[in-house]
Amino acid sequence: MEVIVNVAMSADGKLATPEREQIRISGPEDFDRVDAIRAEVDAVAVGVGTVLADDPSLTVDDPDRIDERRACGESAQPTRVVVDSRLRTPTDAQVLDDAADTVVFASAAAPADRIAAFEQRGATVIVRGDSRVDLPAAVDALGDRGVDAMLIEGGGELLASVFATGLADRVSTFVGPLLLGGREAPTLADGPGFDRPFPELALDGIDRLDDGVVLYWSVLKT
Amino acid sequence: MEVIVNVAMSADGKLATPEREQIRISGPEDFDRVDAIRAEVDAVAVGVGTVLADDPSLTVDDPDRIDERRACGESAQPTRVVVDSRLRTPTDAQVLDDAADTVVFASAAAPADRIAAFEQRGATVIVRGDSRVDLPAAVDALGDRGVDAMLIEGGGELLASVFATGLADRVSTFVGPLLLGGREAPTLADGPGFDRPFPELALDGIDRLDDGVVLYWSVLKT
Repeated sequence: MEVIVNVAMSADGKLATPEREQIRISGPEDFDRVDAIRAEVDAVAVGVGTVLADDPSLTVDDPDRIDERRACGESAQPTRVVVDSRLRTPTDAQVLDDAADTVVFASAAAPADRIAAFEQRGATVIVRGDSRVDLPAAVDALGDRGVDAMLIEGGGELLASVFATGLADRVSTFVGPLLLGGREAPTLADGPGFDRPFPELALDGIDRLDDGVVLYWSVLKT
Repeated sequence: MEVIVNVAMSADGKLATPEREQIRISGPEDFDRVDAIRAEVDAVAVGVGTVLADDPSLTVDDPDRIDERRACGESAQPTRVVVDSRLRTPTDAQVLDDAADTVVFASAAAPADRIAAFEQRGATVIVRGDSRVDLPAAVDALGDRGVDAMLIEGGGELLASVFATGLADRVSTFVGPLLLGGREAPTLADGPGFDRPFPELALDGIDRLDDGVVLYWSVLKT
């Protein structure tokens, strides 16, 4: 499976404020770029922290792109994926609405009544891992369901695990014209830090967009 | 005074590992670029955290650039500046050697015997601020000493204060082809986070260098 990571960060590498408040970092050109990536993948994933902070919908907006997916025999929307070890996603979260299919990955530590509540909302709950979601196993489960390409949009804790397990193939970062600051603000890769050797990248391209820049990286496989 | 900020960061916005270990992020082209900036300014500044972690020399390396400074009637080396509220810089730090003049800014909370020890090493100690160095007052003091342009090279705590007090005019960031990760790793702007409105930047230019990219920003003055 191809795993693409995309985030928008401030010039000092922050995805949000230290209080996890999402600030508009990019603009319409970048929103459209992300919408195009969503339209090209089979699944769009986030961690539960991002759901709690931002309540994202994770859907493709552009009607033409939705039509194009349908014309190719695909679902109108990519499957939404939430990595949520203890099922803390609120049952009224946008990601559980009926705008698209949703798969929620939980660990064996998730309460059974939460699984039932999520399933009642129409989501598919898949348990992988004991106390935390086993990411490679989750990716395998998505592959079994026909997901060949997945976009992961954050947050920093999920992405740190994605990079640490070598799952990411490409990373694009919109770097925006502001500073958010804060030693506790979320970044592209939080977690405890990586073991050596650090994940290495190759710079594939640069695009000026809105008032910032998109950096396109490949993750080198060692 | 013109205040220029320059750092090298990983693609996930980290200046070092969570343990403050400095990892080689850029390469010879970027080292040369930074050497050229050092040669053009009157002072090169860091915070005490950077001294403790990296023991930098902060000097111009290229003999031609040193000759050029001399030919223009300037000192061979820019003045080194350390912002060190409690004078925790080790007296055997490279920044206190005789390769260049050094000014250490302390607060009134610094022990008098440390001031004496620094002065014995040939450094000039200037006290500004009660428990922490008053940065605008420190910049004024440097201006009184003839510093018209200063490069600040980190770390994230000093830079957060530099941005919060509106002292920075330009920011250049080398973004390198690796991920360092870690929610506690230092970044371009640590501290508690900024008050609104967040510091805004304008993207002045982009240069591909080594295997990464340099982003040149101006800080918008409001």
